[in-house]
Order: sequence, then C-alpha cells, then structure tokens
Amino acid sequence: MSGPSRRGFLAATVAAAAGSGIAARPAVADTAMKRPVGDTEPFWDAHQGGIVTPSQRYTYFATFDLTAATGDEVAALMRAWTAASARLAAGQTAQPLAGPLDPAVARSPAGHKGGASYDVPGAAAMAADTGEVLGMPPERLTVTFGFGAGLFTKDGKDRYGLAARRPAALVDLPKFPGDELVEAHTGGDLSVQACADDPQVAFHAVRQLARIAAGAASIRWAQAGFLPHRVRQETPRNLLGFKDGTVNPSVNDPKAMQEFVWAGSEAPAWMRGGSYVVARRIRMALEHWDRMPVAFQEQTFGRHKYSGAPLGGKVESDPPDLQAKDKDGNFIIAENAHVRLAAAATNGSAQILRRPFSYNNGVDFTAERWPPWHQGSEYDAGLLFICYQRDPRSGFIRIFERLAKFDMMNQFVTHVGGGLFACPPGAVAGGFIGQHLFEQT
Amino acid sequence: MSGPSRRGFLAATVAAAAGSGIAARPAVADTAMKRPVGDTEPFWDAHQGGIVTPSQRYTYFATFDLTAATGDEVAALMRAWTAASARLAAGQTAQPLAGPLDPAVARSPAGHKGGASYDVPGAAAMAADTGEVLGMPPERLTVTFGFGAGLFTKDGKDRYGLAARRPAALVDLPKFPGDELVEAHTGGDLSVQACADDPQVAFHAVRQLARIAAGAASIRWAQAGFLPHRVRQETPRNLLGFKDGTVNPSVNDPKAMQEFVWAGSEAPAWMRGGSYVVARRIRMALEHWDRMPVAFQEQTFGRHKYSGAPLGGKVESDPPDLQAKDKDGNFIIAENAHVRLAAAATNGSAQILRRPFSYNNGVDFTAERWPPWHQGSEYDAGLLFICYQRDPRSGFIRIFERLAKFDMMNQFVTHVGGGLFACPPGAVAGGFIGQHLFEQT
Repeated sequence: MSGPSRRGFLAATVAAAAGSGIAARPAVADTAMKRPVGDTEPFWDAHQGGIVTPSQRYTYFATFDLTAATGDEVAALMRAWTAASARLAAGQTAQPLAGPLDPAVARSPAGHKGGASYDVPGAAAMAADTGEVLGMPPERLTVTFGFGAGLFTKDGKDRYGLAARRPAALVDLPKFPGDELVEAHTGGDLSVQACADDPQVAFHAVRQLARIAAGAASIRWAQAGFLPHRVRQETPRNLLGFKDGTVNPSVNDPKAMQEFVWAGSEAPAWMRGGSYVVARRIRMALEHWDRMPVAFQEQTFGRHKYSGAPLGGKVESDPPDLQAKDKDGNFIIAENAHVRLAAAATNGSAQILRRPFSYNNGVDFTAERWPPWHQGSEYDAGLLFICYQRDPRSGFIRIFERLAKFDMMNQFVTHVGGGLFACPPGAVAGGFIGQHLFEQT
Repeated sequence: MSGPSRRGFLAATVAAAAGSGIAARPAVADTAMKRPVGDTEPFWDAHQGGIVTPSQRYTYFATFDLTAATGDEVAALMRAWTAASARLAAGQTAQPLAGPLDPAVARSPAGHKGGASYDVPGAAAMAADTGEVLGMPPERLTVTFGFGAGLFTKDGKDRYGLAARRPAALVDLPKFPGDELVEAHTGGDLSVQACADDPQVAFHAVRQLARIAAGAASIRWAQAGFLPHRVRQETPRNLLGFKDGTVNPSVNDPKAMQEFVWAGSEAPAWMRGGSYVVARRIRMALEHWDRMPVAFQEQTFGRHKYSGAPLGGKVESDPPDLQAKDKDGNFIIAENAHVRLAAAATNGSAQILRRPFSYNNGVDFTAERWPPWHQGSEYDAGLLFICYQRDPRSGFIRIFERLAKFDMMNQFVTHVGGGLFACPPGAVAGGFIGQHLFEQT
C-alpha cells in the first residue's frame, strides 16, 4: 500500500478539500449512481456504531500502522475517515464521485429517472470510490475506529505528543499461555471494524478508508468474518457446531452496557462513552475436533450440542448450574469446561460484550516434526473473536487468563493474532471520531 | 487430515453400511434436529447441480488428493459422497445423526413438536455430522464433483486402471504466459464445488465430505468465495468495481447449453451430459488498480464502469461494437481491451459458462526486491474464476491463450492457482456420480 510521501498527507487533504470547491460542476440527475434505500444504522451518535448495534452478518476487521509525521496529520486522517464513514453508512460513495462520468450516462440523462446528484470532473481523475457497491443498499454498515498503544507510544517514543493521554486501561496485552500470535497479524496503531449484512459492503468500506489514508497509514493485518443466516432469531452456531453467544449482556439493557461496556468517569475525558475492543484470530483444529465423540465435545463446552442447553439443563436459556453434581459427586459441568470458566460467577462478575464472527481462509499445508508426523492441508478457519468492554483489565484479560490456563477447549483452539484498541465515543455531525483526544488542551 | 489407514476405507464403508442396520433404534420425534424447509435445488438429475443452476451467493471450492488403494475404493468414496450430498441438498445432516442425543431432548420429547426422526445410538460415537448448520434451511445447496487427471494417471502410473478411460478433453492445462500458479493451490485428483446462499452451509458440505473421505482422499486446496447481494437482478460487480458476467450464454437456452456446456457424443459414454470445469484463483492488485483513473480502467475493460455499457454503447445490454472507431480512426474498444479479447467474435465463436465468485483472504505481506522496493501488506483478494464448458480445448484454453498474452488487464491480475476437472453427468436416485466410469466394462 504505497502512496504519496508520508509527509504529504495533511497537505494533500487540505488541497483536496479546497479543490472540491474549485472543481464543482453542474449536477446531473441520474439513478445509476444512486444506491438504493435500505436498512441503515445511524453514524452520528453518542457512541460509535458496531458495538451495541445488533450484529450484522459480515465483518472486515483491519488494523493500520501509522506513517503520519505529526499528530495534526493523524487528526486530519481521523477527520477524513469520519466523513467518509458517515457517507458510507448512509449508502453513499466514500467521497463525492470524482471519476469521469459515463459518456453514455452524461449524454442521456433523460434516460435515467432523477435522484442523486454528483460532480462531473475531468476525465483523468482517480476514482473517488472504487465502485464495487454501486447499486447496492447500505446493508446496515457500521464503521468502528480504535486507537492502539502505538498511537501514544511507539518504540519508546512519544511520536505524536499523545503519550500522556494514553488511558490506563489501554494496557499492553499480556502473553497468555498457549498464545501463538503471528507478528504480521497482531497489533496495529489504529483499528477499523466494518460490519454489514453483505461481505462486499464491509470490505468496500475498509478499502476506501485505506485509500484515503495513503501517506498517513497503511493496513497491517485484516480478516473477513461471517455469521450464518439466523433462523427464527436462534443463536448462531460457530464452526465447532455449538451455539455461540448465549450468555451475553443485553444490548437493550443500558444499565448493563454502562457497567460493562462504556468507559465512564474512570477514563480520560476523551474516552468517556467509548469502549475497548479486543480482537483475536482464534484458529480451530476442526479436523481434530470433528473426530471427538459428541459427548466429549459437550463436556468440553459444558453445553449440549444440539439444544444448546447447559449440561444438566433442559433448554438453551437455562442458566448453567455450576453447583450441580452427579450421583458420584462429580460436577455435571466439569471444572475445566468452557462455560464454567467463562461464567461471570467464576470471574468476579466480569462481563464482556462478545461480538464474534467465524472466519474461513481455506486451507494451508502443515507438516509436524514429531510423531505421528502428520502432514497435509488443514483448515485455516475458526473464530474472529471480538469483544467490547469498559476496561480490558477487568474484562477480557481477567476472563481469559483463567481460560488460557484451564479451558478444556484449548486443545482445539489457538490464538494466532489480534490486538487491543481504545474506541472513542461517537461524534456529532461535523466533528470526528477521537476529536477530543487530538484537540484536548 | 489424517484418518484410518488408507487401505481401510472400503472395509470401513461396508462395515458402516452393515452396522447401520444392526444399530437401528426406535425413532424419536423432535424438531430440534430438523432443518427448516427452504429453497432447495434438485440433486438427482440428468446433469449435476451447480453448473446451470442460477448462481448461489457463496461457494466453498476444494480439491482432494486421492490416497485410496484401489478403483473400488474410489468408487465407494463417490457412492458415499453422492449419498451424503443428496441428503445435504435436501437440508438433512450428511449422515443420519449417530452422535449421542441430548439427554434434555431425549427426556422431554413432549417438549418438542413432532417431525424428523433420527437414530439414538451409543454415547461414545463420533458425530455423523459436525452440526454447524442444524436449524438452518438448505440454502439452495448444490455439490458438484469433478475428476482431475490424477484419477486416471499419476506420476505416469495407471494406479486405478482407469487410464484408458481418460477423456481426450481432460488435457493437462498448458502453462499460460504470466501464470504464477502455486503448487499447493493447484491441481488435485477430485474437485468439489459446494454452492449455497449461506457461507456456513457451503463450507459445512465440504467439511462433511472430507470427513467421509478419511483414508481415501484428503483436501489439497480450498477457497471460499462470495457474490454481493443482487438488487433488482442487476449484474453483480466484482472487486474491480465492474459488472462481471454480462455476456454469458443463457442457462435458460438448452440449445446453447448443449452446444457450449454439456459434453456430447464426442465424449466417452460416462461423460456425456457432463461438463468440464476450470477453476482459477486470480489475485487482483487492487491497490494498483485503485490508483488508476476511471477512464483508464474503462479502456482496460472496454466497458463503462458505472453503467456497464460497452464503450461506445449506451446501456449494459448493448452488444460491444468491435468495429466502431473514433474520429482519429482508433478502435473505441481497444485492441487489447478485455471485452474484445474475450468476445466470442474474436475467438472463433468460443463460449464458456462463467460462474465466478470473489474471494477475500485478508492481506499478506509482500516485499519487492526491485525498485521501488515497495513493501507492505497487500490484499489477498480477487476472483475465484469458475467456468464450465463442453471441451476446454475449444473453451477456456482457446479464449485464455489470447487473454494471457494480450489482455490489458494482465497488469492487474495474476493467476495463482486452480485446476481442470471432468464433471460427470448427474445420477439417478440410488446411483452415484461417476458410476459409469467405474462400472464401465
């Protein structure tokens, strides 16, 4: 993702803004350029979208490394990203279309029913939007921005003068037992989570933002994710075949969201009403899992596979009974079962808002160096685990420290990448995400 | 994908078939195990599904390397795969569920409304289905099988006694100019194309087939693909932002299908009514493409980006005018434009049935060894090009030989994997795909 000189970003942004006025041309009526009306999620809001928004079916999650020279350039990037995201969420192109207009369209406006207007600039312009969602509805797109530790301090340097504003909650994630994080798929200075009910719309959003960022930031890692169609609002099943997300604080409970998701007065002013996101790419050894008897899979989860009921319970909505024992005095939900270790009751009431997706990158070739020297192609698939919380120290870190040590599931899953990012609150129209961080005095 | 000894596949299959009778238990009424009724595509048919079937939105395309010892074992695999695929297409589990039943469900059948029946075997069984689509409708699933050259001859050996039955049309694909095929993502003895309107359903099908194949075949490469939501039946746009698939022979025209898609009397008897599939993973240099002016992109394609009209035309459905020239005497659709080189008129009337999907594997890191020494993460995304034809020698090969040499698009796309497979005709209920190849005398 090369681009103009990194020092040029701010100047280029200013020039583009100025140029858009100079280059204004008569608007032409046309529906070919207009995206159909469809379900939209609000962009300008007290909180960023994509956190308590009911989960869309697809995501494209990406992180960026900053190459901007100054904090002003980073602020300009966030301003440009915010404006583009608001347009995209409304079903518009990322920027007003500045590519050459179809001669066919320009010549025959009467052939098109009126509607959206757009600029008609010179023919040699780079497209203001890559165009692959033209004609498509907004698909409930949300774009959620986060700030990684690298925005505040990188290699020990306070490169943007923001080090003093780093939230205490934005810790460096500890290395957990079993972590096999791949450097190239871990970290990043900024995060962008695009979610939509269509995979092309989600990817399109990040692609436009990456283009806008040229010279200021470039993609570090990215992962597409999906959920299966939900039927009758049933809890979707993950690739292990189990219902995933049964126990989650309700996004319809503002009190629970305030307690577990939104940063409060303990946070720096610029983060209040924001949240912290932990993303982890969790590869599943599906071939191995698929050879296990269902009874063993259920012991591992602590739930029945087909109904989703906790072991010892009858229906999915039954709360897991962590005290129940069988006639031999053994816990019905084993001590190292996933639901026991993840339960708030065993984690000092810790709760996080999970917003996971499955991922599927096909297969890759693996050769073991130890008996039984298995070699062959294995699924590169699993869970793109995403969760939001008020403070990761009392959220993901507290919960996962125990899971990483004891969870019976660990023999089937490996964390291979991810990151932690501080997601500021939402913005008011005309402002931008993170504005109070950059403009704080 | 290890499994039982490769010599054990046939024996294990026979034992399972015998065992299913012995192990029969009283059926229990339950809807928790039943997948909802939804749109289905027929499985038992003169032709395999997934060829002229109107394209579903998602695919999981995989190829397998055979490890079976004998032709009988391969035939047994195809029989088992066929039976499982027919069940899956009907929205059933791949095999009758033989995992332990939820105690909660078994204990309270009255709590569930009657419907599907299933077996209730011992508690230690490996699941007969991995379960991640339980509760989901069939989503128009089709499964399409193909035979690669390696089924007939491998490393010069006629390992299954089928070499003499290899169709002349199942050639080894030539190395085309610009090919950068990665060995690990190329070839395979068998191909499986699962298509559905849900990504989890498509992957689930291949995953079940891979489990059934344990000891006889293992996955070589795989790629998930998608199409954007179609609005008003508009032609979907690919990741280059252009409408893709405008010119395709109509699947509603049996005469065209007979002429261009279905193998006829020129083919061996076992292939008549079948088709040949070429799959190519085509990586797109999206970052590079996105920096091009729209006018240049349009010259490259030979079409307008926004309307899809051919250059010089007004609407998408206008046929490209390959003779039209501008006032300076230059062709309006350039000599090296994609639509000109791909047009039947310039290829001796060659036509193929394209059934492409986009793919998106995130990003990977690239470092150039030559100026300008660009390095960074680049999109690992593009086109999973799939096409069907009566004979690849007069289809894909004829068309692509010229495209590979001259297409202006080649500076933006690289073929990085794929294969050619002979897809037999469909099967009658109780038979199996490829039966006439294996049972031919």
